[in-house]
Amino acid sequence: MSKPLSFQDVVMRLDRYWADFGCLIWQPYSEKLGAGTANPATTLRVLGPEPWNVGYVEPSYRAPDGRYAENPNRMQMHTQYQVILKPDPGNPQELYLGSLEAIGIDMREHDVRFVEDNWESPALGSWGLGWEVWLDGQEISQYTYFQQAGGFTLDPVPVELTYGLERIVMYLQKVRSVWEIDWDGVHTYGDVYIRPEVEHCIYNFELADVERVAQMYNLYEAEAKACMERGLVIPAYDYILRCSHTFNILDARGAIGVTERASYFGRMRDLTRQVARLYVQQREEMGHPFLKLPVPGAKTRAIPEAQVPVPAHEPATLLLEIGTEELPVGDLALALDQLENAVPAMLDEARLSYETVQVVGTPRRQAVLVTDLAPRQPDRTAEVQGPPAQVAFDAGGNPTRAAEGFARKQGVPVEDLRVVTEGDRAYVVATRTEEGRPAGEVLVGALPSLMEGLRFPRTIRWNQTNATFPRPLRWLVGLLGDQVIPFAYAGIPSGRSTRGLRPFGSPEIEIEQAGDYMGAMAEHQIVVDPTERREQVRTQVETLAASVGGCIPQDAALLDEVTNLVEHPTALLGRFEAEYLALPQDVLVTVMKKHQRYFPVVSAGGKLMPYFVAVRNGDGLHLDVVREGNEDVLRARFADAKFFFDHDTSQPLESFLPRLDTLTFHEQLGSMLDKSKRLETLALAVGRALDLDTEEQAVAGRAAHLCKADLATQLVIELTSLQGLMGREYARLAGEPDAVAEAIFEHYLPRSAGDILPQTKPGAALGLADRLDSLVGLFAVGLAPTGSADPYQLRRGALGLVQILIEQETPLPLRPLLVEAAALLPVQVPDAVLDAVAGFVADRLRGWLRDKGLRYDVVDAVLAERGDDPYSAYRAAAQLAAWVERADWMDLLNAYGRCIRIVRDQKSRFEFQPGLDPEPATAALGAAYQSARAQVRPQSDVDRLLTAVHPMIPAINGFFDDVLVMHEDRTLRESRLGLLQDIWELSQGIVDVTRLEGF
Amino acid sequence: MSKPLSFQDVVMRLDRYWADFGCLIWQPYSEKLGAGTANPATTLRVLGPEPWNVGYVEPSYRAPDGRYAENPNRMQMHTQYQVILKPDPGNPQELYLGSLEAIGIDMREHDVRFVEDNWESPALGSWGLGWEVWLDGQEISQYTYFQQAGGFTLDPVPVELTYGLERIVMYLQKVRSVWEIDWDGVHTYGDVYIRPEVEHCIYNFELADVERVAQMYNLYEAEAKACMERGLVIPAYDYILRCSHTFNILDARGAIGVTERASYFGRMRDLTRQVARLYVQQREEMGHPFLKLPVPGAKTRAIPEAQVPVPAHEPATLLLEIGTEELPVGDLALALDQLENAVPAMLDEARLSYETVQVVGTPRRQAVLVTDLAPRQPDRTAEVQGPPAQVAFDAGGNPTRAAEGFARKQGVPVEDLRVVTEGDRAYVVATRTEEGRPAGEVLVGALPSLMEGLRFPRTIRWNQTNATFPRPLRWLVGLLGDQVIPFAYAGIPSGRSTRGLRPFGSPEIEIEQAGDYMGAMAEHQIVVDPTERREQVRTQVETLAASVGGCIPQDAALLDEVTNLVEHPTALLGRFEAEYLALPQDVLVTVMKKHQRYFPVVSAGGKLMPYFVAVRNGDGLHLDVVREGNEDVLRARFADAKFFFDHDTSQPLESFLPRLDTLTFHEQLGSMLDKSKRLETLALAVGRALDLDTEEQAVAGRAAHLCKADLATQLVIELTSLQGLMGREYARLAGEPDAVAEAIFEHYLPRSAGDILPQTKPGAALGLADRLDSLVGLFAVGLAPTGSADPYQLRRGALGLVQILIEQETPLPLRPLLVEAAALLPVQVPDAVLDAVAGFVADRLRGWLRDKGLRYDVVDAVLAERGDDPYSAYRAAAQLAAWVERADWMDLLNAYGRCIRIVRDQKSRFEFQPGLDPEPATAALGAAYQSARAQVRPQSDVDRLLTAVHPMIPAINGFFDDVLVMHEDRTLRESRLGLLQDIWELSQGIVDVTRLEGF
Repeated sequence: MSKPLSFQDVVMRLDRYWADFGCLIWQPYSEKLGAGTANPATTLRVLGPEPWNVGYVEPSYRAPDGRYAENPNRMQMHTQYQVILKPDPGNPQELYLGSLEAIGIDMREHDVRFVEDNWESPALGSWGLGWEVWLDGQEISQYTYFQQAGGFTLDPVPVELTYGLERIVMYLQKVRSVWEIDWDGVHTYGDVYIRPEVEHCIYNFELADVERVAQMYNLYEAEAKACMERGLVIPAYDYILRCSHTFNILDARGAIGVTERASYFGRMRDLTRQVARLYVQQREEMGHPFLKLPVPGAKTRAIPEAQVPVPAHEPATLLLEIGTEELPVGDLALALDQLENAVPAMLDEARLSYETVQVVGTPRRQAVLVTDLAPRQPDRTAEVQGPPAQVAFDAGGNPTRAAEGFARKQGVPVEDLRVVTEGDRAYVVATRTEEGRPAGEVLVGALPSLMEGLRFPRTIRWNQTNATFPRPLRWLVGLLGDQVIPFAYAGIPSGRSTRGLRPFGSPEIEIEQAGDYMGAMAEHQIVVDPTERREQVRTQVETLAASVGGCIPQDAALLDEVTNLVEHPTALLGRFEAEYLALPQDVLVTVMKKHQRYFPVVSAGGKLMPYFVAVRNGDGLHLDVVREGNEDVLRARFADAKFFFDHDTSQPLESFLPRLDTLTFHEQLGSMLDKSKRLETLALAVGRALDLDTEEQAVAGRAAHLCKADLATQLVIELTSLQGLMGREYARLAGEPDAVAEAIFEHYLPRSAGDILPQTKPGAALGLADRLDSLVGLFAVGLAPTGSADPYQLRRGALGLVQILIEQETPLPLRPLLVEAAALLPVQVPDAVLDAVAGFVADRLRGWLRDKGLRYDVVDAVLAERGDDPYSAYRAAAQLAAWVERADWMDLLNAYGRCIRIVRDQKSRFEFQPGLDPEPATAALGAAYQSARAQVRPQSDVDRLLTAVHPMIPAINGFFDDVLVMHEDRTLRESRLGLLQDIWELSQGIVDVTRLEGF
Repeated sequence: MSKPLSFQDVVMRLDRYWADFGCLIWQPYSEKLGAGTANPATTLRVLGPEPWNVGYVEPSYRAPDGRYAENPNRMQMHTQYQVILKPDPGNPQELYLGSLEAIGIDMREHDVRFVEDNWESPALGSWGLGWEVWLDGQEISQYTYFQQAGGFTLDPVPVELTYGLERIVMYLQKVRSVWEIDWDGVHTYGDVYIRPEVEHCIYNFELADVERVAQMYNLYEAEAKACMERGLVIPAYDYILRCSHTFNILDARGAIGVTERASYFGRMRDLTRQVARLYVQQREEMGHPFLKLPVPGAKTRAIPEAQVPVPAHEPATLLLEIGTEELPVGDLALALDQLENAVPAMLDEARLSYETVQVVGTPRRQAVLVTDLAPRQPDRTAEVQGPPAQVAFDAGGNPTRAAEGFARKQGVPVEDLRVVTEGDRAYVVATRTEEGRPAGEVLVGALPSLMEGLRFPRTIRWNQTNATFPRPLRWLVGLLGDQVIPFAYAGIPSGRSTRGLRPFGSPEIEIEQAGDYMGAMAEHQIVVDPTERREQVRTQVETLAASVGGCIPQDAALLDEVTNLVEHPTALLGRFEAEYLALPQDVLVTVMKKHQRYFPVVSAGGKLMPYFVAVRNGDGLHLDVVREGNEDVLRARFADAKFFFDHDTSQPLESFLPRLDTLTFHEQLGSMLDKSKRLETLALAVGRALDLDTEEQAVAGRAAHLCKADLATQLVIELTSLQGLMGREYARLAGEPDAVAEAIFEHYLPRSAGDILPQTKPGAALGLADRLDSLVGLFAVGLAPTGSADPYQLRRGALGLVQILIEQETPLPLRPLLVEAAALLPVQVPDAVLDAVAGFVADRLRGWLRDKGLRYDVVDAVLAERGDDPYSAYRAAAQLAAWVERADWMDLLNAYGRCIRIVRDQKSRFEFQPGLDPEPATAALGAAYQSARAQVRPQSDVDRLLTAVHPMIPAINGFFDDVLVMHEDRTLRESRLGLLQDIWELSQGIVDVTRLEGF
C-alpha cells in the first residue's frame, strides 16, 4: 500500500475531484462558522431555482464541543469539506464514493455505510433527510437532501455532502488521534492546532466575559437588522454568523438558560429567515442569471417510449424491484409491510390471478415476486343502459336510429340489444364483453400507481419530477417473465438492470427473467430476505459472543435495526480497554447501542465484558481493517464519556444544583432549580396521599432535592437519554442512600411506552409530583398540547402518571393534588385549568384502559365516576368487565336500570319513609336496599357494589310488578321515588351504569 | 496558446506548487483580515527561531478600498495568495518566478519587474524590505524580507510572498476587469462577488453605525486583554483581528480623526506587541518543537576552501561583480558611488598599482573592473627596534644570545643588526625587507572588507550569517585575469559565474577572464554601464514621443529611476483613452510618474497627449503583450482617479470643510478645521506685515478659509501628493477667483527641496502663516524635532519659511508674528518656546546661507544681528560676502576693529564730548563719524553701512596713531571711549563684525 495522503493532500485531491466534476471551488468563510453549511455558498446559494455546484473547506467552530485537546477526535474546531450539488446530478452517492476512492479509500477494504441521519434546524427554518456516512463505524460525512432552508422550500433540491476531514484522514493514516495526523509530510495536526484548541477551550468554557459577549450579540443583531432594512444580504449575513458564534460561546460558558436559549433561537431564526427572503428577492430581481449557465453532470436519462411487452400466453413470474438510496430502517419496514398488502390488492383490482406474492428487501431495494401471474385478465361482460324502449324501437318493433347509434357505440350488433323493464320503465340494454387485457399492459399502469400509493411519515423530493419517497429512487426493475414492463416513476424508466453490493462497486446486474431474481441476488451475495438476514445476524452475533464466553442480551429492536442497515451482514468481534468497564454500564451500553449500533457482550452473570459485536455490510475481506476502525471509534467515544464522567464525579451531585438556576424550565414557571424546589414540597404531599411512612417521606424529600441535578452534569448534557440514570449513579457516588439514588432514577419512569415503572414508593411519589407540576404549570401558562404540538410531551407525562398509580395499586383522587401543585406555582391557576388538566389525564386513562381491551361502555361507565382516580377506575373497569360477561348480567342491569330510569329526570331528592307505604313489595325492597346499603360505601369497588346489588333483583322486580310508583298520592309517590333514588345512589361515585350497553 | 487557467485553477496550481516545494498548505482565516499577513500563520509563525514554510489563500478585506464595484480592479475585498519561506531557502526569487511559470506566465512574453517597495507598520512594530513585483506594469505581488514583527527582530528572516490573485488572473485571461474573470469555467468572478462587493461598500461607507461599531471595538479590546492576561494567544489574536477590521470600517465610514487614528493605532500596536510577546514566550516554553523538523529546500552551499590563485607575473584585469536581488534605485546609485571611491582607496591601501578603475552596474549587479592591476605588491623594508646595545653585544662587541634571538625572530642574519644611537640611548635595529604579496592573495582579504565597508541607509539581513545589504546577495564574481579570487561574503562563495537577464531565465554565464566581462554582458544584452543605459532610455523614449508628434518633458529624476530599474531597456509607446484628458493634468502626471514610472507625452504646446512611454526590462519580443498590459494598468488607475474626481467635484470645495473637524491636527492643537480657522486670522496678520493691499488681503483670507479643504476630498486622501494641487483645481471648479485658487496651491510651496516657491503675495502670506502656526504650536506641545525624529517635518517647514521670505525679497522680523501665532493657539506658549522656534528658524537660515556658498564667518556675522529676519540676513550676507573679497577689506576691518576691540569690554556707555578733547585727530574722527552716522540707520543694509564706514579708515588710523585713548584724565578718556562706542554702534543691528575672520 502506498503512503497515505497527508491532510493537505486530501484537501487538494478533493478540490481537484470536485473541480473536475464541475464544481466551483470556494474558500472557507471569513467568519467563524459552526459548519460548512453556514457558509453563504451553501445557506444562501441553495435558495431559489438557480443551479449551484460548489466545493470548499470549512474550519468549523463549535465551542461546546471543546475537550481541551484531551479527546482523540472531539474538538471545538474541526475541518469540514463541503459540497453542494444543485440540482441532484442523478448519481450523487456514486460521485461521493468516487471522491473517497480519489483520496485512497478502497471500498473493498472498508465498511462504508449510509446510516439515517436527518437534519432539521427549526431555528433556521431548514430541514433535509439523509445519512451519516460511516467508515468502519466512524461517522466521516453527512449527506443530506435539503428540502427547506430559511423557511423556503427548495426546488431544485440540493444535495449536501459534508466530509469530516480529520476523521477521514485519521483513517487513511491509521492514527488514533487527530493530533497525530500528518498535515504536510512534516508537521502534525497537533503541531499546528493543539495549542489553539486548548486556548479556545479555556476561553470558551472559563474566560469569555458573559456580559461583554452578550453585548456583542446585541450589537451584531442591531447591525444585521439595519443591513436588511437597507437590502444588504451579505453584510447582514456576516453579522448573523457572528450572532451565532457568539451564542455558541455563551452556551459553552454555561450562560444560556432554557428560556434564553429559546429566545436566542427565536431571534436567530427571525434574522435567518429575513436574510433568506431578502436573498431570494434579490436573485429574482436579478433575473436568476445562473439559470443560463451550463450545469455539470446533468444528463437526463431519456425515458424510453413505453413499449408494451409481447403478451404472454403462460403464467409468468412478476418482479418489481424498487432500487433506492439507502432507506432508513423504519421506512424499509414500512415499505415492505405496505407492499405485502398492496400487491395482492393491486392484483385483485387488476383481475390478475397468481400463485404467491413474496416481498423481500434491503436498504437499497424492495422487491416483489409474484409467481404464476396470469398472462391476462379474464374477459368480463358489462351491461350498458341505453335509450327508453319506446325511443329505441318504433311501433313496428324495429330498432330506430337511436338504437342503432347506441349499439354502434357499444360495439354490439343492434339485434343483440335487449329490452329490460323495471317498474313502469322499459329501456334497452347492451351487453358488452370486455376482453381481458394482457398482464403486462395492465401492469404498465398499475405498478406506478402501486408505488405512488406507498406512504411514509417523512419523504423528500430530489429531482425535477418532485416525486416523493423517503430517499431517492435510482433504478426500477419491472419484469414479467423475461419481458420488461415499461413504465417510469419519478423520472426513472424501468428496466432489467439492478445493482450489486456497494463494497463491490454496485455493479450492474442484468436480470434475464423475473424468476432468476432470488438466484441473482444470492449469487451477488445480497441477502435480500429480511428474515433470513435477521437470522444470519443473530447467529453470527451470538456465535462471536460465545467465542469469548459471553452472550448477547436480547434486544429485538437493535437486531431489527442492524438487519436493515445491511444487504450482506458479516459480524465482527471488537474489544475495548477493560479500564472503561469502570464507567457505569448504562453509559457504555448507551454508547454502544444508540450511537454505534453495536451489540454489547455480557458474561453469564450479566456483567458487561470488554467486547462488542458490530455488523459490517459486505463479506469478510479485510475484516481486520474494519474491526480496528470500529474499535477506534468506540475508544474515542468511551474516552469522551470518561472525560465527562471524571469531570462530573469530581464534585458531589448536590454541587450541580446551583447550575440548575441557569436552566430555565419555563419563562413564567422559573428555572429548573425553582421546579426542583417545588417538587420538594409536592413530593411530600403526594407521599402523604400515598401513605408513605416517615422513612419513605425522608427519601422522597431528599430525592426531590437532587432529582434534577444531573441535568447540569456534562455527561447528561452530552447524552440526554442518560438523565436519571446518571442522577442515580452520581447520587450513589456522592454517598446518598441507595433509596434516594433509586428514587432519583425512578422519577423519570416510564421514559417511553413499554418502559419499566417506579418500584419504590418514594420514586413513584416523586415521579407523580414531577408530572403534576408540569401538567398544571404548563396548562396554566397556556401550553396545553394541541392536536399537532406537544413540545413538553405532556401526553406522555399524563399517561405515565396513570401508569404509575395503576402500577402502585394505589387509589388516589388527583384533584386535591392538582390544587396542591397549583398552589406552589408562581402563577395563578384558575379552576378551569384544573378541570382541563383533570380531563386531559382522564383522556389518557381512557386510552390506556381501551388499550387494555376493555369495552368502551365499561370504560365510560367507570370513568364517569372514577376518572379522577386512575387506579380505582382501572380496578372498577376490570371488575365491571367481568360482570358484564356474566350470564345473568342483563337481569341485574335491567332490574337496577328500572330503578334508575324512573328517577333519572327527577329534579328533587325525596326521602323514603318506610312506615308510610302499605305495599309489602315496597317494604321488601326497602329491606333489600338496607341490606345492600350496609355493604356499600362511596369508596367501594364495583365488585362490592354489584355483589351487594345483585341480591336485590327479586325485590326490585317484585316492587315494580306490584307497586305503582307514580301514585297519585304525592306523599306516597315521593317516598317511593326516594327509595329508588336511594338505590341509585348506591352506585353513584362508583360506576355510572346508565352508560353501559343495554341500559 | 492553451486556454488560460481559471481563477480556481490558479489557486490549485499554487497550492500544488508550494506543497511540492515543501510548504504546509493552510486555509484562509476565520476572521476578516486586511491581508494574508494578518493570518496568524504569518503574523505569529514568523516570530522566533523555528522554521516555517506555508502557503494559503486569503480573501482580504480593506473597507476603504471599496469602489462599489465600479472600478475594474479596486475592491474592498481582494484575494491574496500568501507564502512564507522561513528561513530564506537561498533562491526565493527563482522559486517565486517558478510559481508564475506554473500558472502559465511565460517570462519571455511579459515584463516582470522587482520594484522597490518596503513595508513598515509602526503600529505592529513590523518592517521589512522588498519589492512590488510588476507584471507588465501591474503590481501582482509583494515580496518582502521581514526584519521585524510585533517588535521582535526576526531571525531567521522569513521571505513573504503575497500574490494579488485577481490581478494575476486578469492578466492570464486577458480580461480588463476583475468581474470578468473566469472562476471555474462556468461562473465569472462577478457572478459570485459583485453583489457582495457593492453591499459591503454600502455598508462600510454609508450604513455602519459608528456608535455600535466603536462599541464592538471596545468589547473586542477588553476580551483580547483578558485573554492575554490568561496567556491565551489565539483567542486574543482573534479579537485583535476584529479590532483591526472594525477600525477599518470606522475609517471607511469617515469616523476616524487624526488623533483618534493615532489613539487606535496605539491601542492596536500595544495589543499586537503583547500578543507577539506572549507567543514568543509560549514557543520558548514549548522548547521550539519545530526546530527538530526538516526544512524544505535548505541546501547550504558549501563555501570552498580559499585557494589562493596562482600568482601572476603580468599585470591583469580585476573583476568584482556583486550579484544581488534587484537593488532599489537609490541603493544602486549609492553602491556605485561608494565603489568609485572605495576601490582606488582599497588598491592604494593594498599597495597595488593599476591603470584604470571602472565601476558599472544594474539593479542586479554592481561590477568593478580594474585594468592592469600589478601582479603583486612592491617589496618594502621596515626597521624594527631591538634590545639595548649593551644587552645585544658583550664587552667584546660580540652578539649576545639576546641579539641572536632578536635577529632570528626578525629573520635577518645577526651580523646585519645595526646599532642606532639616539640621545643617550643606543639599541640594535634590524632592517627587515617585507616581500610584496601577490595581488590575488591580497584581494582575498581586501574584497570582503571592501563590501563590508559599503553603507546604505536601510539594509536587511536575510540568512544565517546576518550579513546586511539593501537586498540579498546571491552571487559573487571575483576574477584576477582568468583566476578566481577565492573569498566569501555573507555566506556566498566567489566564482566566475554570473547570471543573465531575468526574461531569459537568468542563465548562468561563465566569465573566463576578467577582461571578457563587458563583452559577455553585451553579448547577453545586459547594458551594464548606467550612463549608456540612461542614454538608451532617453533616446528611445524621445523617439517614441516624437513618433506621435510629442515630446517628453525633462525629468532627470524619472530618467534616473527608470534607468536603474532595468538591465536592458526597451521603451514602448502606450496610449490611453482621450476622455481621461479631461482630468486635471496634475492627476494624470502624478499617476503616470509616481505610480507607474511612465514618461508622460506632451504636445509642442505643452499639453498632455493621450500617450505614455514605459520602459521594459528586456528585448522587444512580445512587446505588444507588455504594452497592452501597461495600458490596462493605466486605464484602471485613471478610472480610479476619475471616480474620485467625479465624487469630489459633485459638491463645492467649501462643503468639505466640516469634515476637517474629524481630522485632528494634534490632540492639544485641535482639528484641521481649528487650524484653518487660525490661519484665517494669522494669514491676515502676516499679510499686513508683508504690506498686502486690500484686495490681496481678501484673497489671503478666502484662501486661508479653504486651504485645507482638499484634505477631505477622496482624490487627496488617495493621492496625498496632490494636496494643494487639487485644492486649486477644486477651488476653480467651485468658482473661486483664480487668485484664491492659486494661493491655496501655493501655500504648500515649497513641497520639497528644489520645489518652486509661492509667486503671489497671498500665497506667500498663507504659506508663512501655516508654517508659523505649525512651528509655534508643535514646539509648544513639546514636539520640537529631535536629532533623529521630525515627524511633522518642521525642519522642512522652517526652511520653507526662510525660502519664501527670501523669494519674496521682503524683510520681515519674525518675532512679532511668532507672538501673534502663539496668541491664536489653544495652548499657553512661554517665551522660551518662542526663543526656541526663532533659534530653530535661524539654524535653517544658517544652513541655507551656507548652502549658497557663503563663508561661515560672514553668515555668523550677519545672523548675529539679523537672524530674525531671513531676507535681510540674506541680503546682508550677500553684500558682506562681496566686501570681504575686496582688496582693501582688511584695511577696513582692521581700522574698524581697532575701534571695537578697545571698547568691547567696557561695561558702561560713555558720551563723546566734542569740545573737550584737544587732539585734532579726535576731532577729525568725530567729524568722520558724524558723516557716517548721517548715512546709517538701524535698518540699513551692509552696503550702506560699510560704504559709510569705509571713508573713516584714515581718520580711525590717524586717531589711534596720535591719540592715547586710555588717557589718565577720566573725563577725556571717557569721551574718547564714547566716540569709539558711537562708531561701533553704527554696525550694531546690521552685522557683528567681531565674528569675521581676521577680526
